[in-house]
Amino acid sequence: MKIYLDCWPCFMRQALSAARRAGAPPAQQREILEETMAQLQALAAAATPPELGERIHRLVRERTRHPDPYLESKRAATAQALTLYPELKARVQGAADPLETAVRIAIAGNIIDYGAAEHFDLVETLERVLTAPLAGGGMPALRHAISAVDAVLYLADNAGETVFDRVLIDTLGVPVAYAVKAGPVLNDATRTEAEAAGLHTVAEVIDTGSDAMGAPLMLCSPAFRRRFDGAALIIAKGQANYETLSAVSAPICFLLQAKCGVVADDLGVATGSVVVKAAAALARFPAA
Amino acid sequence: MKIYLDCWPCFMRQALSAARRAGAPPAQQREILEETMAQLQALAAAATPPELGERIHRLVRERTRHPDPYLESKRAATAQALTLYPELKARVQGAADPLETAVRIAIAGNIIDYGAAEHFDLVETLERVLTAPLAGGGMPALRHAISAVDAVLYLADNAGETVFDRVLIDTLGVPVAYAVKAGPVLNDATRTEAEAAGLHTVAEVIDTGSDAMGAPLMLCSPAFRRRFDGAALIIAKGQANYETLSAVSAPICFLLQAKCGVVADDLGVATGSVVVKAAAALARFPAA
Repeated sequence: MKIYLDCWPCFMRQALSAARRAGAPPAQQREILEETMAQLQALAAAATPPELGERIHRLVRERTRHPDPYLESKRAATAQALTLYPELKARVQGAADPLETAVRIAIAGNIIDYGAAEHFDLVETLERVLTAPLAGGGMPALRHAISAVDAVLYLADNAGETVFDRVLIDTLGVPVAYAVKAGPVLNDATRTEAEAAGLHTVAEVIDTGSDAMGAPLMLCSPAFRRRFDGAALIIAKGQANYETLSAVSAPICFLLQAKCGVVADDLGVATGSVVVKAAAALARFPAA
Repeated sequence: MKIYLDCWPCFMRQALSAARRAGAPPAQQREILEETMAQLQALAAAATPPELGERIHRLVRERTRHPDPYLESKRAATAQALTLYPELKARVQGAADPLETAVRIAIAGNIIDYGAAEHFDLVETLERVLTAPLAGGGMPALRHAISAVDAVLYLADNAGETVFDRVLIDTLGVPVAYAVKAGPVLNDATRTEAEAAGLHTVAEVIDTGSDAMGAPLMLCSPAFRRRFDGAALIIAKGQANYETLSAVSAPICFLLQAKCGVVADDLGVATGSVVVKAAAALARFPAA
């Protein structure tokens, strides 16, 4: 998915927010905004939003000399999500369709995204996502694929969302490799936040080999690419994974909330939709 | 009120939205965003957000050769608001405190603001504003001033909001001069939109002599300034009037929703607050 002009104001907001989280004084905040503008004007037309986002968040980390401006936000989101974990588990156990409920819970956690907005209501989102119509049409293909594969590669998105992913992983019934970022970017989960959420107790935690948002394969490690190429089913969480992988031919099921209009338009759904989208290679998945 | 860095992404969004409303093709949308960036970097530190906004919306009108990119939005907002008018009147007539109810209705209409956001829910906002706590502490001073003056200068804000203003003007019981913009800017009301909402039947419609947002006195006409200087009570609607007049010593009562964090912080209220804020000169208003 390419960059849209709509992304320009959004990246300005993200750059300012990240600079402030990193403790930048006002003059440095302004310098960072000016450098962000220069990046926006210079960007290659084929760049995806996460690729530009990675450059901007790296710029903030370098200029402010702060290695992880979202560290506290990530810790707080994980702590809040963990308080919900027993209730989330109970919802799945009491559900008429445990798999779909667990999928919805995993998607609900995708609201924890400081790229899309500065504020969100986690509990309200959970109730909404549990009952909203599913867009994207991918639930049957996902259900079929899960019943047929003997392992899943799960591409993580944000810290805190990790806890919601854990609920889905608990439900899958097959071994899972859970791929996080190799270094901090925005509020994306790294190994630190995955382990704080207990993911290492239910999955093999691996990383993409990159601190880029999503999974831009050109920037990922050979080890990750081998995992990716060999996976029979890839569950990819969130907008950035969709933005970087929507043009890749692989057995991917994207689970996300289409929080911004640009992503929603690309998916052909309404903004705010709860999306289960099977890539063509997954929709063709053969019966086991 | 000065410009904050938070305004930069917001003006980028406004510029892009206005360019699209004016029918600009993508290459021109991009040029307008790049010019907006240049304006942001060049702006005087003392400029208020509405002053910069005026420059950016003028830029869009000039580059696209479209005299009024928000014309259709203004018509639609006025039409929607007029359908609510009978109900709004009934609410005031049935209220225990008709003046406060009419003030709240006028503030509810302030949600119709394409500067603050691209979407809003008018009916939901009305219910919220009718019952929310009033921030700013100005209601007693406003009530006292209304009982004591023999005329009011009312500074309008957006098209459609005009209908909600009309409900308050109906309730004031004194002659009102209703000041709109002298030319199109954003979705602000001009004489055209004021008359479409029937304001000329309940007030003398005048204009600020300027197409700047708010009422930056340096840019307003001598005729408007004489009205302003001679007014015993000025009711000023919306963020832009607050932003341009908050540092002016005059008997002003600001009625607005603090839709953005920058304005809310300046007012010392929470974002989203329903605000009745009396300027110092009004708070000292002598008893009649």
